[in-house]
Amino acid sequence: MRVAWIGLGAMGWPMAKNLKKAGHEVLVYNRTEAKAKAHADAFGTRAVPLEAVADAEAIFSCLPTSDEVAGVVEALLPRLREGTLWIDCTSGEPEKSRAIAARLSEKGVVFLDAPVSGGVAGAEAGTLAIMVGGDEAAFERARPLLAALGRRVVRVGPVGAGHAVKAVNNTLLAVNLWAAAEGLVALAKAGVPAGVALEVINASSGRSFATMELIPDRVLDRSFPLTFKLGLLAKDVRIGGRVVEDQGVVSPVFHLARELYQAAARELGEDADHVEVVRMVERWAGEAIR
Amino acid sequence: MRVAWIGLGAMGWPMAKNLKKAGHEVLVYNRTEAKAKAHADAFGTRAVPLEAVADAEAIFSCLPTSDEVAGVVEALLPRLREGTLWIDCTSGEPEKSRAIAARLSEKGVVFLDAPVSGGVAGAEAGTLAIMVGGDEAAFERARPLLAALGRRVVRVGPVGAGHAVKAVNNTLLAVNLWAAAEGLVALAKAGVPAGVALEVINASSGRSFATMELIPDRVLDRSFPLTFKLGLLAKDVRIGGRVVEDQGVVSPVFHLARELYQAAARELGEDADHVEVVRMVERWAGEAIR
Amino acid sequence: MRVAWIGLGAMGWPMAKNLKKAGHEVLVYNRTEAKAKAHADAFGTRAVPLEAVADAEAIFSCLPTSDEVAGVVEALLPRLREGTLWIDCTSGEPEKSRAIAARLSEKGVVFLDAPVSGGVAGAEAGTLAIMVGGDEAAFERARPLLAALGRRVVRVGPVGAGHAVKAVNNTLLAVNLWAAAEGLVALAKAGVPAGVALEVINASSGRSFATMELIPDRVLDRSFPLTFKLGLLAKDVRIGGRVVEDQGVVSPVFHLARELYQAAARELGEDADHVEVVRMVERWAGEAIR
Amino acid sequence: MRVAWIGLGAMGWPMAKNLKKAGHEVLVYNRTEAKAKAHADAFGTRAVPLEAVADAEAIFSCLPTSDEVAGVVEALLPRLREGTLWIDCTSGEPEKSRAIAARLSEKGVVFLDAPVSGGVAGAEAGTLAIMVGGDEAAFERARPLLAALGRRVVRVGPVGAGHAVKAVNNTLLAVNLWAAAEGLVALAKAGVPAGVALEVINASSGRSFATMELIPDRVLDRSFPLTFKLGLLAKDVRIGGRVVEDQGVVSPVFHLARELYQAAARELGEDADHVEVVRMVERWAGEAIR
Repeated sequence: MRVAWIGLGAMGWPMAKNLKKAGHEVLVYNRTEAKAKAHADAFGTRAVPLEAVADAEAIFSCLPTSDEVAGVVEALLPRLREGTLWIDCTSGEPEKSRAIAARLSEKGVVFLDAPVSGGVAGAEAGTLAIMVGGDEAAFERARPLLAALGRRVVRVGPVGAGHAVKAVNNTLLAVNLWAAAEGLVALAKAGVPAGVALEVINASSGRSFATMELIPDRVLDRSFPLTFKLGLLAKDVRIGGRVVEDQGVVSPVFHLARELYQAAARELGEDADHVEVVRMVERWAGEAIR
Repeated sequence: MRVAWIGLGAMGWPMAKNLKKAGHEVLVYNRTEAKAKAHADAFGTRAVPLEAVADAEAIFSCLPTSDEVAGVVEALLPRLREGTLWIDCTSGEPEKSRAIAARLSEKGVVFLDAPVSGGVAGAEAGTLAIMVGGDEAAFERARPLLAALGRRVVRVGPVGAGHAVKAVNNTLLAVNLWAAAEGLVALAKAGVPAGVALEVINASSGRSFATMELIPDRVLDRSFPLTFKLGLLAKDVRIGGRVVEDQGVVSPVFHLARELYQAAARELGEDADHVEVVRMVERWAGEAIR
Repeated sequence: MRVAWIGLGAMGWPMAKNLKKAGHEVLVYNRTEAKAKAHADAFGTRAVPLEAVADAEAIFSCLPTSDEVAGVVEALLPRLREGTLWIDCTSGEPEKSRAIAARLSEKGVVFLDAPVSGGVAGAEAGTLAIMVGGDEAAFERARPLLAALGRRVVRVGPVGAGHAVKAVNNTLLAVNLWAAAEGLVALAKAGVPAGVALEVINASSGRSFATMELIPDRVLDRSFPLTFKLGLLAKDVRIGGRVVEDQGVVSPVFHLARELYQAAARELGEDADHVEVVRMVERWAGEAIR
Repeated sequence: MRVAWIGLGAMGWPMAKNLKKAGHEVLVYNRTEAKAKAHADAFGTRAVPLEAVADAEAIFSCLPTSDEVAGVVEALLPRLREGTLWIDCTSGEPEKSRAIAARLSEKGVVFLDAPVSGGVAGAEAGTLAIMVGGDEAAFERARPLLAALGRRVVRVGPVGAGHAVKAVNNTLLAVNLWAAAEGLVALAKAGVPAGVALEVINASSGRSFATMELIPDRVLDRSFPLTFKLGLLAKDVRIGGRVVEDQGVVSPVFHLARELYQAAARELGEDADHVEVVRMVERWAGEAIR
């Protein structure tokens, strides 16, 4: 199938490659053209100007926020053809996705939101979890393409539902991580090494992805590798806050998390890794988690 | 070894049995005497009055709070013999345990706090995680006994450290569960069934014991079995709040959790199961997690 | 001047009367027509069908939320005449007001948001505080009309600014009231009567409108008169939360207040008086503020 | 009467002077002896070593925390005489005051906690509000002395009640100030100058000591004079949190305030003025309140 890919960031780069490896013809577009050319040279995809994207049967977007997606949709709208499938892998906003879907439907283009989870490693290996929002028929059309990108591909509901699930997932990560940092830094001050505390917690009911993966792998050795920017997680937590708010759910925990991550992004910078929020907790406690 | 067990509640009952099965002579004391007699009849332990407990080489206590432990310690103090080992499996308070340890040391009795994790099922099967606070030598003496009760037995630090780790673990459980409920009820209102959302979240970074075990097993089928009372978890979260506060750790998430669980215990009753806090989130949202 | 008034609720009723008393010709419209007729009978205003409102030089709206305002604007739009002044006294939303203003400007109608503070008593007496958003020239046109309604009439900024200030004011009220309730109920449990505590607090730095007016007048005597519905304050606090969020302000206190008032509105009902949130704090504390 | 004064800090210095002006013989003790001598030279009081304090009929303490008070009580205990009145103007802790009172009662010394409100200006002018905890008879004995220090002298309850009321008052100040900063900085970003917003708010229901006094006088002109250290307010808010917690009051607002002020004290330093917490809100918002 002729497929187009918009956005060759940390995630988009290996995902577009995996589509090509699966046998598809892949047109790639990136705002910085050199990156698209490098992708074409490396993987046999084809670097194209934005307008050429409209020729594809399926268009993927993988951009920082829904606003950039809305921007390229507007730019391409006059050229889009009826029956095209638009699959948005951005970690976007449900409400904005519904607006984008409505706009695309004016030209007969069908929209799916299909954000992913699993990080750069999962993108590289084609083992991402993909949560898809949109109608059933469109999902069935997209499924063979998505199979090249991830191992767990689930339709979770109507347009916007994919983004909502992604935002909730990432807010849970954010909450679980911050809480773990509060507890572990207190234990460290009380003389319990974090590694020892985690040995127990990870065999008990307090465990989470944060205590089982992030803190052992990235905090205890003080490596804090940059894999997912704090600014992007803070954005996801803002979207998570909007999801619960739009549904009229009393959500003190989600909203506190939003404020804390926003404060941390201000203090540590949007470009810090998301796990570095631990440093914020440590700074306020006067002790490191070790 | 001659061992005494004080407190035959939901956890203490099978734990005392496991000590007996491991070949120890086990004296059991319970405030309601009939319960001790029933235990003796069922497992071949020996029901004794409180003062007889002082004859054991090792005394276990497994009571609702540190206050009850302090009470029996005071009652037994005149009879306690030098060299006795006191192992407290209560989910107690670090500060109070330090006071109890000091009091016991006046008579040459050595104190370990050894709270457990794993629930009634783990207690029954002898597969508990046990987090021990106290000195190294005492821990080595206790280890063979604890091996009959749990599979993962870890000395985490000085007296009080076991209770601190337990309180932190349970506060993490409390936070992770409440946050998951907020997110899942919002998704349910947005048209995403909780089972579908969890399929993705549990393959992603938002997962925790709450999303992997508690909600699938107890909430989705609306069974909410009573395995651990809300009032007890609320108490543990209060202790968790005290741990972070005593260490001067800025802990907005821990403290918010404490207030929410206290409110939920007021609304739902101390005797509700801890997972029923989900009902509080649902009530405020006007929607169930299904 | 020929003036129209849309919405004869608790506030709108006396405000429309004051315009009439100031010598203006006042057309009144209310969804329930009988109410408009009663107003006309009582004060010499003129009850009219909605479409007749378009004939006025200035149109006031005073409705539950911005959504109702948007509704009547759409209904009237075809008939509205260039140069008409639309003054919205609703406690509305800045963003929606900006959209309404844009819509009205298509027909050459100028919009001011002009929410009020001072309650029914202030509305009756014509002593309201009125915070106006909109352009300077429109404000100067509106000033003589607003002078009939309030004593302190201030232009606070562009369209939406009036609603933003109102929402912030009411959120501060909400925060100050809840915090006072937490403190006073704890003091009551500790044996300090609330009246005694307030004698000191109101001479000290902890004082606020809540401690100086609301609690002495309505809580200590347990009267809790219905003057402003909890559901409406909860709505204002939601708008307050949106104001700080839209400006990217880290606002843990505003957002916590929003969640608490939303929970209280669920538990106590939207129709309870706003001061009854004190009952929520009391219920969770097991003690009354007396 | 022969009166002793322990602690010549910013508040104690003028308060001891006012006792002397009221005709009492005043012995002054300060850890830094030179300060006591300077006080004696300036006002005709008498600088004495700590042990000489025991000769007074009434002993005032005015120290940073209850821990220092407990320290001087222990040091003086052997010399204290039955019937002496101990009046503690420290912003202390109820629980610790109860322990101190019990200790003093062993020697027949009667304790009152009598923290003050009104700042250095009120201390200088003798117009403080004084909230007294302790028994009625002791209060009557103390009343003539306290009349020299403050204008509003109120017995609020048993020992510890004075400190509890002071802590609650200061926590309300802390909450009201932080909330006002969140709202005003958002309005400033939305184009509403803080002075204009305050004109309306201070005529409305959102007003508090923070909006009426602190922000107009100290923030709008960016003067932030140092009158009360942030570290001390943060301590009072911690005590406020303890008061509500000890009474089993669900207090999300009090506890959030405690965490925020603790974080702010870490970031801005304990020696910043308390009103500088506004700078924290501004820093996270990227905008100043002007």
